[in-house]
Amino acid sequence: MDTNGVMTVVYCISFFSVAIAIVFAVYLHLWVKRQPVKNQTIRDVSGLIKAGANTFMRKEYKMLALFAAAASVLLFLFLPSPVWSGGDITKNLCMLIAYWAGTVFSAIAGKMGIIVATSSNGRCAEAASKDIKSAFLIGFRGGAVMGLAVVGISLFGVAGILLLFGDTTISLGFSFGASSLALFAKAGGGIFTKTADVSADLTGKVELGIPEDDPRNPAVIADNVGDNVGDVAGMGADLFDSNVAAMTSALVIANTLDVATHANTAMVFMYAALGLIASIIGIATAKIGPGSTPTRALNSSTYVTSAVFLVLTALCTAIIPGFSWQIWGASTVGLLVGVLIGITTDYFTDVSKSIVKKVAHASRSGSAFTVLSGVSYGFISALPAMIGIAVSALAAYKICEPMGTEYALFGIAMAAVGMLSIVGMIISNDAYGPIVDNARGLAEMGELGEETIRVADELDSAGNTVKAVTKGFAIGAAGLTVISLLGAYMSEANAALEAAGKALITGFDLMDPVVFFGMLIGAAIPAVFSAMLILGVDKNAQRMVAEIHRQFREIRGLREGKPGVKPEYDRCIEIATSGALRELIPAGLMAIIATLVVGFIGGPRAIGGFLMGNIVSGLLLSLFMSNAGGLWDNAKKYIEAGNEGGKGSEAHKAAVVGDTVGDPFKDTAGPSINTQITVVSLVASLMSAIFVAFSFFG
Amino acid sequence: MDTNGVMTVVYCISFFSVAIAIVFAVYLHLWVKRQPVKNQTIRDVSGLIKAGANTFMRKEYKMLALFAAAASVLLFLFLPSPVWSGGDITKNLCMLIAYWAGTVFSAIAGKMGIIVATSSNGRCAEAASKDIKSAFLIGFRGGAVMGLAVVGISLFGVAGILLLFGDTTISLGFSFGASSLALFAKAGGGIFTKTADVSADLTGKVELGIPEDDPRNPAVIADNVGDNVGDVAGMGADLFDSNVAAMTSALVIANTLDVATHANTAMVFMYAALGLIASIIGIATAKIGPGSTPTRALNSSTYVTSAVFLVLTALCTAIIPGFSWQIWGASTVGLLVGVLIGITTDYFTDVSKSIVKKVAHASRSGSAFTVLSGVSYGFISALPAMIGIAVSALAAYKICEPMGTEYALFGIAMAAVGMLSIVGMIISNDAYGPIVDNARGLAEMGELGEETIRVADELDSAGNTVKAVTKGFAIGAAGLTVISLLGAYMSEANAALEAAGKALITGFDLMDPVVFFGMLIGAAIPAVFSAMLILGVDKNAQRMVAEIHRQFREIRGLREGKPGVKPEYDRCIEIATSGALRELIPAGLMAIIATLVVGFIGGPRAIGGFLMGNIVSGLLLSLFMSNAGGLWDNAKKYIEAGNEGGKGSEAHKAAVVGDTVGDPFKDTAGPSINTQITVVSLVASLMSAIFVAFSFFG
Repeated sequence: MDTNGVMTVVYCISFFSVAIAIVFAVYLHLWVKRQPVKNQTIRDVSGLIKAGANTFMRKEYKMLALFAAAASVLLFLFLPSPVWSGGDITKNLCMLIAYWAGTVFSAIAGKMGIIVATSSNGRCAEAASKDIKSAFLIGFRGGAVMGLAVVGISLFGVAGILLLFGDTTISLGFSFGASSLALFAKAGGGIFTKTADVSADLTGKVELGIPEDDPRNPAVIADNVGDNVGDVAGMGADLFDSNVAAMTSALVIANTLDVATHANTAMVFMYAALGLIASIIGIATAKIGPGSTPTRALNSSTYVTSAVFLVLTALCTAIIPGFSWQIWGASTVGLLVGVLIGITTDYFTDVSKSIVKKVAHASRSGSAFTVLSGVSYGFISALPAMIGIAVSALAAYKICEPMGTEYALFGIAMAAVGMLSIVGMIISNDAYGPIVDNARGLAEMGELGEETIRVADELDSAGNTVKAVTKGFAIGAAGLTVISLLGAYMSEANAALEAAGKALITGFDLMDPVVFFGMLIGAAIPAVFSAMLILGVDKNAQRMVAEIHRQFREIRGLREGKPGVKPEYDRCIEIATSGALRELIPAGLMAIIATLVVGFIGGPRAIGGFLMGNIVSGLLLSLFMSNAGGLWDNAKKYIEAGNEGGKGSEAHKAAVVGDTVGDPFKDTAGPSINTQITVVSLVASLMSAIFVAFSFFG
Repeated sequence: MDTNGVMTVVYCISFFSVAIAIVFAVYLHLWVKRQPVKNQTIRDVSGLIKAGANTFMRKEYKMLALFAAAASVLLFLFLPSPVWSGGDITKNLCMLIAYWAGTVFSAIAGKMGIIVATSSNGRCAEAASKDIKSAFLIGFRGGAVMGLAVVGISLFGVAGILLLFGDTTISLGFSFGASSLALFAKAGGGIFTKTADVSADLTGKVELGIPEDDPRNPAVIADNVGDNVGDVAGMGADLFDSNVAAMTSALVIANTLDVATHANTAMVFMYAALGLIASIIGIATAKIGPGSTPTRALNSSTYVTSAVFLVLTALCTAIIPGFSWQIWGASTVGLLVGVLIGITTDYFTDVSKSIVKKVAHASRSGSAFTVLSGVSYGFISALPAMIGIAVSALAAYKICEPMGTEYALFGIAMAAVGMLSIVGMIISNDAYGPIVDNARGLAEMGELGEETIRVADELDSAGNTVKAVTKGFAIGAAGLTVISLLGAYMSEANAALEAAGKALITGFDLMDPVVFFGMLIGAAIPAVFSAMLILGVDKNAQRMVAEIHRQFREIRGLREGKPGVKPEYDRCIEIATSGALRELIPAGLMAIIATLVVGFIGGPRAIGGFLMGNIVSGLLLSLFMSNAGGLWDNAKKYIEAGNEGGKGSEAHKAAVVGDTVGDPFKDTAGPSINTQITVVSLVASLMSAIFVAFSFFG
């Protein structure tokens, strides 16, 4: 079979696996829809949540459209080369199309996830009143729709764009589009969800002493909406972005290797397609068997997916000419290290392990000690993951080095692809969390009885356990991806340097003060970015608390719970939405402007340092924040389960403070840093030609 | 004048300036001793503080001696080259001597500082009952003895070792000795001071409701001892270390440049000597003039010192052959940027500026918001300093680049020397803080009346204000120093590679996976190190709280304040001391072992990445922790001054939580990270030959 033959087959397999994934997702969605939901309260509240989520998504997409329109002008004028430089203007147009496709495709995947998640929650609650097995299936399959949609659509997009334009630089435009959306969805959704959560807690639990999901609280629907827009749509967009970025950077590097054949490009698509197929098999096998638990069911389908992926890729490496075992080894290392990072993350955040108990115990001395011990273990928890990423990058490189250094870099990119191969499964597990979390709230509001709530609790706790693992996985994958993005950046910068007739970049030397200059500033950016998001949650929550106070003051009978009197839920959703987007913009712009300033001052080498500083400190801070947040959350839950004095004790009050600090850490700032890194890397890659042309010290 | 003539003159000037500094320090000490202290309570308590500080110092030096003995065996066996490799064994002996000199010299400087600080505090308190001017002079001159001792002795040591052995590699041994001591003094002292502080607060203020300095509290003397061992001896050892490291790394690089002449080596000593002379002049001019305040007096002497330094160095650059204006420019950039970093740090932590007020305001919503806003502004506050360090390194490099790239690296080292030139003044200002802080406590215990306490408060608040500036300065200088240490490391590694007949390192390429591997792990180390120190404070405080409870239980009449009944202050000091040293060892070893593991796996290039990752994340975290801690401290003080509800309000309680979190941030972990970076850099430089010989991927 000749080279073009291989590519044709690979494209066919890619599109075929996408088709299966979409058909399977539609089947699962219809299956979920067939499940009954009779309780009227649940139907009503579930409807309110769905409407609220749609409000946010509509606003978000509208604002994104404005942002994208502004970005489009710049993209068209400058990229891949300035329109006035005599380059090919049609290329700039193609870039624009790819960018829009990236945003729109990711938006569609997010929308699908929200639709199914908001229709699964009520059904899951009602099923929980019968038995745990069917409730689990509804929660899991609801999440799986999101998983399949994200991976299927991202593969479709990447393959389609390359097939259409045949230029990996244009693929970067698609990736940038996906990143733009992720920035809005993940960071915006993160601010939304924590605004609502914090405001609901402050006014409800603290001021009025009413329970968490009390319908009198005007923020209660916004709080539930937040779970969906933050954890479902936001997380989906984040992993859509990572997945696209991993594939794209692998493709950019593969392109430089594929002079005679397309074997490497084919390999990227083949692995991605096989990962999708493995995820479908994993999803199809997920169920609670006799004597099993929800946690075991979720974990075992992750292991099934991984095993299937390894076997399938080994088979095709053996069969297809030009596929190398070294690259297979690199991708396998990526996958295995991903699992290991997940396990170590679990050690630091699992409620049954010692660290959570230590933080709970420290809470007896007061909230300062909850915070100090959580910060400390959060910092320590970053180490194993950092080592994991470092080792997998080194191992992937060393495995592929015998083929040449260019292949070694490709090996790192393929380790990222390998780590993300089971992303369909990861998203399914992750989206399961907010669905069963919502279901628990709905079971309470619909008064389905204590046994149902107990079942929902068990499902919820499994969601929290696997969430830690998947989060570690996602950060690890992002870490490897951005390394290959740095490689992609270098390819782009060198193409620009070659075109300009300047000396090529052979590397970014730490002893080069221009690189060092970029690195120090790059390292500070994730800290500032996350600080701005946290302060954004703070400000936004203040607005929402003021609105809640107003409603309690002006709506008569609301505080007393007079029948028929309802709060204006919409107003709270409205405030959370517009505030979230308003607070997000300055943080995103700060990161982009810093990239431009460093690029225009220091040129392409400074940007190399900037990206690396950004990656290193970004990984450290996002691991720290995500893990510390999870740790505090579970320490509180551990105390609430009756330990260290139990609910209402001084230790519990201290643990609540820790949890409140951890909320924006783990759900707003921590996971948004990944997106910030990707956005900045892509801006750098896209602007490389401009930096080559105009820079002070370049 | 020939080359050797220049060196002779320079050595003479160096030793002459050291002599003046020591004579002046002795004069100031005698002047302080001549001031009266009549109040018996003050004499007693001051005596107890002195005895407690001596207990800690004795234990610390004993443990250091054990550590140094163990290190000596390794040093002798391996450095600068393994004894069995047929190298010159006398060199290994010289290295050993230099190492011991480094620890002993630094210990002497620390001891001098403690002696004068603990005899100044009571005198300062008594003088405050007369007038502010003389009280200020006692506090300042007491601090100045420490400043002069540190800078004088460090210059004497560096010059003496080079004169004696004539080998800059041996100078690294001296620097490593100073770092070893700094690790014990700064991190150990930091754990001590916060153990005592936290325990005294928890039992005294929180459990018993007695005031901060109540003599019934068994921890109260330990608390005052902590100010001295942490802020005076610890900070002094830290800056001794930075100053030696800056000079040594400049000397190592100068040595590679000085093939024909010794002009560059001469320049390093000349600048250091002139910095010392400028500091003497600045110290001599410090006093509160008519209509001035303590803050203005402290700041104006800093500015005088800077101006004198610039003028003197310009003069000698104009006169002495071989001294270049470019290098002068680099050193000037360093000094100016140091001042700028100080000013921006001040903006984030000054009680009269908006950030502190915002955090105080956020405290109204509860302690979680105090923590969240403090963490956020702490992160943001790191940005200007990171930019400052980045810009000064780039500017110093670019100014000197026309002379050749080697000179450009020397320019960065000289920027660090420039920034540290006024270190004598900086230490004087910094040591002033704990003296007047102690004086305030003594004034209260000695019942000197409200007016005296008000005066002491004014002196104390000036101490806090300048502390923020000097801390920013110290971190900035450390940042530049470690860059030049990286340069020094590369020189050392290349010497070893050349001897081994291997290819030289021309740089550390970020795209090299071995470098990247080192960098990711290096970046995680400061986080883990600071976490271990914070947890150490925590554990140690628990032991001390248990002891305080025991005393209140077993010593009859203590709780009621029966006349003649005294707590066993010694036991608390004993616990704080042994616990501090016990908690410190694992953290220090962790950093050193990580360096060795990375070196043996990845070889010299991995260590380059490791050091850079360590520097970048270390700077970020130490700036974050120091500034956030200062911010919380001042937010609490702002509320205590009657704002946002004042003392006893909910906002105040929240601010106390913030302050308790900030205490180990700003006084234990944050400033110790500098020392960790220096220790790791020196271990790397010293071990470079070993890593060249034995490493897996090297």
